[in-house]
Amino acid sequence: MAMFYNQITGGSIERLAALSDGIFAVAMTLLVLDLHGPVREAIHGEADLRHALLAMAPQIVAYLMSFLTLGIFWNGQQAQLNHFSRSNQRLTWIHLAFLFAVSIMPFSTRLLAEYILFRTALIAYWANILLLGAVLFVSWRYARRARLLKDDVSREISCAMERRITGAQALYALGAMFCYFGNYVSIAFIVVWAYMCIAWYPQLVPLE
Amino acid sequence: MAMFYNQITGGSIERLAALSDGIFAVAMTLLVLDLHGPVREAIHGEADLRHALLAMAPQIVAYLMSFLTLGIFWNGQQAQLNHFSRSNQRLTWIHLAFLFAVSIMPFSTRLLAEYILFRTALIAYWANILLLGAVLFVSWRYARRARLLKDDVSREISCAMERRITGAQALYALGAMFCYFGNYVSIAFIVVWAYMCIAWYPQLVPLE
Amino acid sequence: MAMFYNQITGGSIERLAALSDGIFAVAMTLLVLDLHGPVREAIHGEADLRHALLAMAPQIVAYLMSFLTLGIFWNGQQAQLNHFSRSNQRLTWIHLAFLFAVSIMPFSTRLLAEYILFRTALIAYWANILLLGAVLFVSWRYARRARLLKDDVSREISCAMERRITGAQALYALGAMFCYFGNYVSIAFIVVWAYMCIAWYPQLVPLE
Amino acid sequence: MAMFYNQITGGSIERLAALSDGIFAVAMTLLVLDLHGPVREAIHGEADLRHALLAMAPQIVAYLMSFLTLGIFWNGQQAQLNHFSRSNQRLTWIHLAFLFAVSIMPFSTRLLAEYILFRTALIAYWANILLLGAVLFVSWRYARRARLLKDDVSREISCAMERRITGAQALYALGAMFCYFGNYVSIAFIVVWAYMCIAWYPQLVPLE
Repeated sequence: MAMFYNQITGGSIERLAALSDGIFAVAMTLLVLDLHGPVREAIHGEADLRHALLAMAPQIVAYLMSFLTLGIFWNGQQAQLNHFSRSNQRLTWIHLAFLFAVSIMPFSTRLLAEYILFRTALIAYWANILLLGAVLFVSWRYARRARLLKDDVSREISCAMERRITGAQALYALGAMFCYFGNYVSIAFIVVWAYMCIAWYPQLVPLE
Repeated sequence: MAMFYNQITGGSIERLAALSDGIFAVAMTLLVLDLHGPVREAIHGEADLRHALLAMAPQIVAYLMSFLTLGIFWNGQQAQLNHFSRSNQRLTWIHLAFLFAVSIMPFSTRLLAEYILFRTALIAYWANILLLGAVLFVSWRYARRARLLKDDVSREISCAMERRITGAQALYALGAMFCYFGNYVSIAFIVVWAYMCIAWYPQLVPLE
Repeated sequence: MAMFYNQITGGSIERLAALSDGIFAVAMTLLVLDLHGPVREAIHGEADLRHALLAMAPQIVAYLMSFLTLGIFWNGQQAQLNHFSRSNQRLTWIHLAFLFAVSIMPFSTRLLAEYILFRTALIAYWANILLLGAVLFVSWRYARRARLLKDDVSREISCAMERRITGAQALYALGAMFCYFGNYVSIAFIVVWAYMCIAWYPQLVPLE
Repeated sequence: MAMFYNQITGGSIERLAALSDGIFAVAMTLLVLDLHGPVREAIHGEADLRHALLAMAPQIVAYLMSFLTLGIFWNGQQAQLNHFSRSNQRLTWIHLAFLFAVSIMPFSTRLLAEYILFRTALIAYWANILLLGAVLFVSWRYARRARLLKDDVSREISCAMERRITGAQALYALGAMFCYFGNYVSIAFIVVWAYMCIAWYPQLVPLE
């Protein structure tokens, strides 16, 4: 009987991927929904509008960072799904937990953009990233143990996947710690690091 | 002529699944869109922000519960779609009714989060869950009678599907009744129960 | 050269269907995003909240009508896409125009819900439905003339498709004219008619 | 080792297309979310509402232009994806950059609609379009050099793809320069030009 319900639900990687793409797409687009333009009353001429837009620069950097982060994790999840031969009920729920972490990213970003000089906001933002990484790590470990990986996934690939997540999380943690020197130092570190990984990827230690 | 229009429309499980994934993805992400951070004016330092975030905890629990619930019903609908050999016009409309219930979930959640101590809000929330379950039950019954199920769906599986829905609804109803002892008791019961079902699934009576 | 660019773009029914499902999913869910719960300050007890929710009933009917309408047109577009053997640049643009009409539906609905007693709002709403039907009609006509239909689409099916659209539009127009007797008469007519078509479909004259 | 991580991630055109469709769908629908109806307090009768809706005309034109633009770029990206035999990590990131430009389109549109007489808003809007075109150009160049194109993509098609992008961008730049004569001249030029390209496409120089 225990195996029985598992046959009824779960199993389809395709629909999990479809739901994931949907949630990522909405989360990535909603990020920018919170970018409110300058308030109409304060703008009296072209110069005012130009200054108001320039004053949004740090806010835009925070959104760009979140878009990058979501892009990185979208890639990371896709890499995992590509290596699963099938899913089961429990793996599906691990990925739903991952998607929950994705769906709260717009909230964390809004919080950070509004309180960009508050350490608490940066820590909350980092906690969100940590959650994303942790769930992805659990997902891979579980899939490996429950023998849900494809046959061509060697032990080497499997270890590389886990190393990527832990390595990237170590760097995010380092970046978060830099908030000791101010939040902008943290953010700059994370953005530059993410950019480097994307641009020189895969020559560098990969970032998840 | 009666059969004629049926051939024209309906029939495609794939596009129904795609629309469903899209609506679930938007509904699940919109849930969190309503999580408004603390108001800027009330925050004068790190401690204020930390307290304001902690004060959001019950609100976050309400959203987590809705995400869980939507996840459970996404799984439930997927299980059904996997067992349909084809669709027809009427089955498509039953699932559109189901998707309507999904799309009002962010509204019910917002209502509950804002009026978390009001019994009326909890009853409205529960009515939404009841609607989700009822439509899903009707969908399976109809598909079975209209012979839209795949050939390998035994009578046993079929009964198990219906039992899952009625069993889960009974528990949701029980949880809603606990609002007699206060809304937090109800919410705690539902969240704990959902978590247990997900974690020990399928050993336990499954929850839909 | 004229044929040349056509080969470069267009052509894929699959991605058009995916974009359509996405836009329908977002539009259908956004409808309910505008359902704002009662204002916190006005609610002093359970009875207040219950009355405030009951007072939302007409608003909810307007949203239900829009969900039904979008469901009907989603079915209609799906029926067409199922019968296309391939697409071209122009047909893709006709469907993008259709999707534009879909994407302004939340705006029309919000307008109607807020100004539910104003004839102007009802006319604007009906104009949106007319646009949906007109573009869908143009799409089918064009596909037939440009020989983009599958080979098994008989002249009979083809005429039936066009009759469905014009028949349904005639009824929507009739419904809109009933606003002479008040907007609620119009809305009731449209909702009841839509429900009848869905429930007794395909025995009745089908509604698109 | 360098090739190793590339095998792990990237590679799937299908999921990139799915994410793109999702982001386009959300962005296209969110455009209209910002179309706020007239304020309730200012409307005392049918005539007021009619005038208020007519007064929204320029705003609606701005949104229509953005929908057209997104439709054009959706076509353009689709054309590219259709010609890729596979993807790699770097190409995926180029397309994520493209999707970032898509996701900020609702922000640029809102800015333009609110500050429709400000040259700064029009320049910001045009910069967004320039970014879309530039990233799409880089994407094609990179795919060609990294040999990610399908075998049947001749040098002729390849040059045509690049010419389309540069040609269209030249016209968008010309349109933006027309803001010297007022923003409405610019907007009218872009809308008319886009419409012509869509209607007489592919006989005309194609617009990307």
